[in-house]
Amino acid sequence: MPNSFESLETPRLLLDEARLARNCAVMRERCRALGVNLRPHLKTAKSLDVARVALDGEKSAITVSTLHEAEYFARNGYRDILCASGIVPGKFAHAARIRRESSCDLILVTDAIEVAQAAARFAESNGVTLSFLIEIDCGEHRSGQLPDAPAVVEIARAISASPQLRLRGVMAHAGHSYGVDEPAAVVPIAAAERDAAVNAAARIRQAGMACEIVSIGSTPTVLMADHLAGVTEARAGIYMFWDLAQLSRKMCRADDITVSVLAAVIGHTRHADTIILDAGALALSKDIGANRLLPDAGYGYLCDPVSLQRLGKLAVNTVHQEHGTVLVDDAAWFERLPVGSLVRVLPNHACITCAAYGAYDVVRGAEIVARWERINGW
Amino acid sequence: MPNSFESLETPRLLLDEARLARNCAVMRERCRALGVNLRPHLKTAKSLDVARVALDGEKSAITVSTLHEAEYFARNGYRDILCASGIVPGKFAHAARIRRESSCDLILVTDAIEVAQAAARFAESNGVTLSFLIEIDCGEHRSGQLPDAPAVVEIARAISASPQLRLRGVMAHAGHSYGVDEPAAVVPIAAAERDAAVNAAARIRQAGMACEIVSIGSTPTVLMADHLAGVTEARAGIYMFWDLAQLSRKMCRADDITVSVLAAVIGHTRHADTIILDAGALALSKDIGANRLLPDAGYGYLCDPVSLQRLGKLAVNTVHQEHGTVLVDDAAWFERLPVGSLVRVLPNHACITCAAYGAYDVVRGAEIVARWERINGW
Repeated sequence: MPNSFESLETPRLLLDEARLARNCAVMRERCRALGVNLRPHLKTAKSLDVARVALDGEKSAITVSTLHEAEYFARNGYRDILCASGIVPGKFAHAARIRRESSCDLILVTDAIEVAQAAARFAESNGVTLSFLIEIDCGEHRSGQLPDAPAVVEIARAISASPQLRLRGVMAHAGHSYGVDEPAAVVPIAAAERDAAVNAAARIRQAGMACEIVSIGSTPTVLMADHLAGVTEARAGIYMFWDLAQLSRKMCRADDITVSVLAAVIGHTRHADTIILDAGALALSKDIGANRLLPDAGYGYLCDPVSLQRLGKLAVNTVHQEHGTVLVDDAAWFERLPVGSLVRVLPNHACITCAAYGAYDVVRGAEIVARWERINGW
Repeated sequence: MPNSFESLETPRLLLDEARLARNCAVMRERCRALGVNLRPHLKTAKSLDVARVALDGEKSAITVSTLHEAEYFARNGYRDILCASGIVPGKFAHAARIRRESSCDLILVTDAIEVAQAAARFAESNGVTLSFLIEIDCGEHRSGQLPDAPAVVEIARAISASPQLRLRGVMAHAGHSYGVDEPAAVVPIAAAERDAAVNAAARIRQAGMACEIVSIGSTPTVLMADHLAGVTEARAGIYMFWDLAQLSRKMCRADDITVSVLAAVIGHTRHADTIILDAGALALSKDIGANRLLPDAGYGYLCDPVSLQRLGKLAVNTVHQEHGTVLVDDAAWFERLPVGSLVRVLPNHACITCAAYGAYDVVRGAEIVARWERINGW
């Protein structure tokens, strides 16, 4: 269904098909070279179509961050799903239902002995099986047990002791790889992530238990690790789309960024030297994570709708719920961007921006070639 | 369907029925006292059920900010709908379809002569009618023509000249009333908003045209205006729900805040003195607007799930996509908030937080008594 952008009612979320395919191929090749399985994280994309591209058509192992996402992929044929946010007992019944209805090995995560114990009670009294990874803190200190904490082995024992639970392994996530200024600074973080996961796995094995999965990942650490010896799989997600936050840390180039928001100029406030867009806080999100290293990023760079080349130094400087305000340094912009004209805005943080939309309009060159649904919420 | 919170899978958006009813009654009474019609803004709530409470069961005039919202309310019996964000020619066909399918007087807004001219061409060549308000800038300088700008009368003439367009009036929005520190500072802003709208209407009438609607509004200016002589209607929205940003400006009390996010404790990261919730950047939004005046607001105050009383000084201090991190000042919190326990988080900015959810779980005391759908997106 080829179509021009003019037929789309703004704001809309556009996805560049060629960039997505290229980004996904790069990560698959990177994991092959590292000798680890790629278990892509689909919390950013939340889309069967994007998953298909990421996995080159296979329905192999994936990562998600909510049971809602897990259920969506399980119902659509995925059989090896890691739900990588800490589970709580109130969600066991939902997890068990997903496993039962789809014959899926849904792998849950915890760093809490009381969750492992509650899971054993739940699984035994309901006659169901639950699989677990133990979360290891590799230095971000968001969540996870430290790799040398006694709790790692205690949780492993609590899981292994139950005939209804399966201890699958350990996972670490170096979220602090997003906090550094350049790729070279990621190298030691990647080493710490690997070492934390590998060492925790070794302690579990030394205690006489199996630890089949040793999972690490964030896009920056997978790309920058000098090796991943002892690791079995890598989780990464933002590499599919990239964004200004990753551009600001030099992890990608501007022409790797796959998603953008198509917006219309809805007014010229000439007495304030501004152009107003119909993309504001909801359409772009209030994430301004790119601004620390790219102080001109604002709520997103303005680009030509077809070429995706940046329009001068224009960015969305202020947002209200449905309004984005663009300061212009030259009145010529009022002629170049008349009321009703279209722009594309590159997002600060693709994971957050995409969550406002129920679908991607897929772009090939200057044509819309498909509409890919995505899910949101919980 | 009474139910305890324990049965809800977190994160969920809760709405306190009694607070909503009280907030809505206060605003209706305020507008009666001011002698203006209340045209509530439903961009925050996006819900038929909330609209019913706001309008005390009438399907009278409402405000929305997108055509998607307009269509939702038009299909459900609302016949006087103001879409208060600047329209562009690419959306005329959709606006005309909403009018035709629902016999609704959908009122559009612009501040651009070229939009008025394009609307005339569209309406005449398609045999449809479109209604307009002209947007007036009352000092925020986001959008609108200044009240004394020649363009006000020029746009009015362009609309009035077409047999297919209806000039309904003018609107002003003092969005800068959100930028001040206390209610007293809103009083002059409210006067400026009123004067801008009334003066622009007078100029249109002096030029020989009718200007039936003189519309102003933001919750703070409607509440703080000393009078609204010459104004016909007030638009306000956040008063239905309130939030920490409005609390920070002393426009509401903590126990006026109607919506909150129910979240579960998913982990204790004791070595980092943190409690981890399953409500992060998506469930709470990245809006931190309350922090300028309430520096401890973080991404939201933690409250007891039933009493909604704040839990000490706890707030969500950091967010990742699905994780909220709460710094604890006392290890006793780990006992008081065990893994799996529930909290409620008061949002910084209800308009943005609510947009992540497809429904409200409606709370009466400690029971869930209903589920009210809401719409999102465009």
